[in-house]
Amino acid sequence: MQKGKASIAFEHPPFIRAAASIAGKKEGEGPLGALFDIVEQDDMLGQKNWEAAESALQKKAAELAIQKAGLTPADIRYLFAGDLLGQLIATSYGLMELEVPLFGLYGACSTMGEAISLAAMTVEAGHGDRCLALASSHFATAEKQFRFPLGYGNQRAYAATWTTTGSGAVVIESSAIEQNAGCPLAKISGITTGKVVDFGLKDSTNMGAAMAPAAFHTILQHFQDFERDEKAYDKIITGDLGTIGQTILLDLLAKKGYELYGTHMDCGIQLFDSETQDTHAGGSGCGCSAITLCSYILPKLQDGTWKRVLFVPTGALHSTVSYNEGQSVPGIAHAVVLEHVGKG
Amino acid sequence: MQKGKASIAFEHPPFIRAAASIAGKKEGEGPLGALFDIVEQDDMLGQKNWEAAESALQKKAAELAIQKAGLTPADIRYLFAGDLLGQLIATSYGLMELEVPLFGLYGACSTMGEAISLAAMTVEAGHGDRCLALASSHFATAEKQFRFPLGYGNQRAYAATWTTTGSGAVVIESSAIEQNAGCPLAKISGITTGKVVDFGLKDSTNMGAAMAPAAFHTILQHFQDFERDEKAYDKIITGDLGTIGQTILLDLLAKKGYELYGTHMDCGIQLFDSETQDTHAGGSGCGCSAITLCSYILPKLQDGTWKRVLFVPTGALHSTVSYNEGQSVPGIAHAVVLEHVGKG
Repeated sequence: MQKGKASIAFEHPPFIRAAASIAGKKEGEGPLGALFDIVEQDDMLGQKNWEAAESALQKKAAELAIQKAGLTPADIRYLFAGDLLGQLIATSYGLMELEVPLFGLYGACSTMGEAISLAAMTVEAGHGDRCLALASSHFATAEKQFRFPLGYGNQRAYAATWTTTGSGAVVIESSAIEQNAGCPLAKISGITTGKVVDFGLKDSTNMGAAMAPAAFHTILQHFQDFERDEKAYDKIITGDLGTIGQTILLDLLAKKGYELYGTHMDCGIQLFDSETQDTHAGGSGCGCSAITLCSYILPKLQDGTWKRVLFVPTGALHSTVSYNEGQSVPGIAHAVVLEHVGKG
Repeated sequence: MQKGKASIAFEHPPFIRAAASIAGKKEGEGPLGALFDIVEQDDMLGQKNWEAAESALQKKAAELAIQKAGLTPADIRYLFAGDLLGQLIATSYGLMELEVPLFGLYGACSTMGEAISLAAMTVEAGHGDRCLALASSHFATAEKQFRFPLGYGNQRAYAATWTTTGSGAVVIESSAIEQNAGCPLAKISGITTGKVVDFGLKDSTNMGAAMAPAAFHTILQHFQDFERDEKAYDKIITGDLGTIGQTILLDLLAKKGYELYGTHMDCGIQLFDSETQDTHAGGSGCGCSAITLCSYILPKLQDGTWKRVLFVPTGALHSTVSYNEGQSVPGIAHAVVLEHVGKG
């Protein structure tokens, strides 16, 4: 059911049946390290180059999520997936062997929100019984794509974030076929889809500041569309704003009368210990929100610690070309409402 | 309704209410030149760089399609859009001012098929009454992204295609809200979604050959899923295989017993006169199938010249990084069934 300007409230909320998180070594040494399904000790994953390593992350995450759901790739109707690289090469090469129809997505670091939204819309409509939503990023592919060769040992700005090496995948299943299986991780009761928001920031080393207005817009739109406020949520969780973006978001919302200081959480802040891990403003990348969702957020929804959270991955929509041409860095954020499923 | 392994037959087929095609100067001088809504005489579109020019193409196509449907941007629930550039910058910057929720897509030159598929799925499910599907490409941004600086005057391989400068956009509308308006351009009765297909070709200047196996796979899957063959269609129209890819596709299908020599058409072959326009194997780019659809295919469906066509945009899923790393060029193709709507 369409709600307000940019939201859907699902009449038959799809379930998240299973989730898998594959993380890099540094992520494994962070606060969430013990929660990941697999922590890779070799960031090359035995591959010949970084891009192939990122493809391997996606493949592992997809296969493990499908396996944890007790399924095979042939049971999955569609893949909704993306990454940060030009022409989505981590996704195309990584998911090829699954031989499942693919919708390639680009929403920068908001991609996991976009993928879950479209997969949930598809499943709820009966267009597929089970879909897989996934996203990945890799520190080394992202540095190569967006910044400097690793060998330069370039100094990073304090406002910069650290691109996550990891991939998270969720199996989204129709509520109509749920009865025979165990308790799902969560249900997806609604979504609010973001538009491109540009406040004119041009500093691509401060993506938190560039993305905060997009998160602000999507959260505000969500409150309006659902006629809710922050009190309706145990947590409102952005993707990778980091410490600087978080401050901006909370200030922007406070000016509209929403007090999120106790409710807000940011995956980028959770994922690393910036004091000891030198990650500056926090973690980022499509993989940041994806592996935090799969390892930390969904288990808390499954066990009822949290009854309802708003998951809002955030993306910065620039490229090196747009940056070199002096363009600003617009942002986008896609929100997903995730709820605890009672044992019934 | 799910059909077979990879298809949907829509129980309430959405309508294509309006379409717009914005083409570059060279496209305007080709065989379809008189059919485009707008032929730009300045391939910079008055912008400061090629990327901004491509963004302007998308914005113009979107605004014109919405206007032709008698709507305003606020009437559009979602945008489904993409382009060929790293991090989709033509799309993000081009569509920002519409202020409509955006699902960014990457399917290389198959993007128009992906966008129409997802928009139709969304509209049929009741998740939105009207959505806009669009895609763009620009010769100069693509050459810069994938090949050589234009100033090099690099010689192009005979197997190479010419990236289309253009953007096509369609307004897709729920059949439930059709009654009050005039006759739509076509209805979307089904889709078949492609998987990534890799035959191991490594020559990125011969994308027709790289994409032909993907088109073959999707068309074959479509025939199986719908229990149809080529005789069910007035035309089966691929995106941008060009002359070399066409030969491969027809040969592959003939080996499976399907005779498409009279039924097949390729947008890339239609768009340019390769004899006089020096375009070698044909046109390519997301814009190729998009503007051919909007200017040439949809009018023939509206007036009943064709009763049913299978529209199959095709994409090559490589990047310069994957090419430089010695990877093959996988392909993907997304099929959409378009049908004439009787006056009723």
